[in-house]
Amino acid sequence: MTHALDALYKTVVSRRNGDPEVSYSAKLFARGRDKIAQKFGEEAVETIVEAVQLQPGGDRTGLVAESADLLYHLMVLWADAGVAPKQVWAELERRKAQSGLDEKAARA
Amino acid sequence: MTHALDALYKTVVSRRNGDPEVSYSAKLFARGRDKIAQKFGEEAVETIVEAVQLQPGGDRTGLVAESADLLYHLMVLWADAGVAPKQVWAELERRKAQSGLDEKAARA
Amino acid sequence: MTHALDALYKTVVSRRNGDPEVSYSAKLFARGRDKIAQKFGEEAVETIVEAVQLQPGGDRTGLVAESADLLYHLMVLWADAGVAPKQVWAELERRKAQSGLDEKAARA
Amino acid sequence: MTHALDALYKTVVSRRNGDPEVSYSAKLFARGRDKIAQKFGEEAVETIVEAVQLQPGGDRTGLVAESADLLYHLMVLWADAGVAPKQVWAELERRKAQSGLDEKAARA
Repeated sequence: MTHALDALYKTVVSRRNGDPEVSYSAKLFARGRDKIAQKFGEEAVETIVEAVQLQPGGDRTGLVAESADLLYHLMVLWADAGVAPKQVWAELERRKAQSGLDEKAARA
Repeated sequence: MTHALDALYKTVVSRRNGDPEVSYSAKLFARGRDKIAQKFGEEAVETIVEAVQLQPGGDRTGLVAESADLLYHLMVLWADAGVAPKQVWAELERRKAQSGLDEKAARA
Repeated sequence: MTHALDALYKTVVSRRNGDPEVSYSAKLFARGRDKIAQKFGEEAVETIVEAVQLQPGGDRTGLVAESADLLYHLMVLWADAGVAPKQVWAELERRKAQSGLDEKAARA
Repeated sequence: MTHALDALYKTVVSRRNGDPEVSYSAKLFARGRDKIAQKFGEEAVETIVEAVQLQPGGDRTGLVAESADLLYHLMVLWADAGVAPKQVWAELERRKAQSGLDEKAARA
């Protein structure tokens, strides 16, 4: 089954040449890289503010929602810049393998 | 098969009580929410800088690497704040369903 | 003569209990610290995007405008958090004195 | 008397061609616009984290220090991008005059 994030990326890409009046993604692509990066940054800031003010046992709904906003804008940024999700997943896998080796070395 | 991001989250959680001298994740957890949020924010800024200065046909290696850094620190932030990835994936799915309805309404 | 930034801070403070319908500053104070910090962060991101995409000899109007937005929101943040500008100016002076000493030591 | 921020800008400009081994400002200029913008962004994030977690009556030392860091890196960014402080002060004065007119109109 396709992961929610890969599915989101596909949806975002499919909206690239859509009508900016109908699709928010199409509107973002039309406004260009700088604007997309700016929106992504705004969501990163909102994620930080939610995370920092969250009390133990507090309601995580805000952080979940801001994280979803952040990831959506990251997918738009990747699509606009020509980065495919699988390139990032491969980088994460590569680091994991490396990190395992580092830990083994550290334990040796 | 487990998605790279879910696998990363699991690894991060497993390091929570690890030795800060050996594990960078353990070190981050030990420094606390504010510091984790700060590091996440730094990676968001680096992602923005990479994305904005990327030329058409340019090398995307930097953006891929910064995105991996960003997502790693987001996983640590989620783990520290008690957010499970599936909560965010569910939120993305919920929005997708909603967005489909919106588009149908707009086309009507 | 009062410096533009100190004058701005005074204006911002005078609007604190103003009508949120009339004054944008009053509206920001009414929305609280998290929202003020978020707006400040958004302006920081816009400043970064302007600065990074500026070409040599390019038009600096955007960077000047974003910097003004940033400083305005920083003044609101300081006012809301109870930080007086002179505390920050004193910190800058203190560092300057320290830095002079460091340089002298380095040259010795 | 020269304002602390204008004095800081002058100092920063005077270090532009200094020795990166001795002067942190010279080191930043040598690393270029992207790196300067990134450091500025990191300080913006630290300022946000300090501001959001500050409790009423709490110690503002951290926010003062982060604000000083932020403004220092903003001066380096301005110097690197060819923005003079007086351009930003003029923009702030222009807005103040405009805002006064707006308020008058709103009261009319």
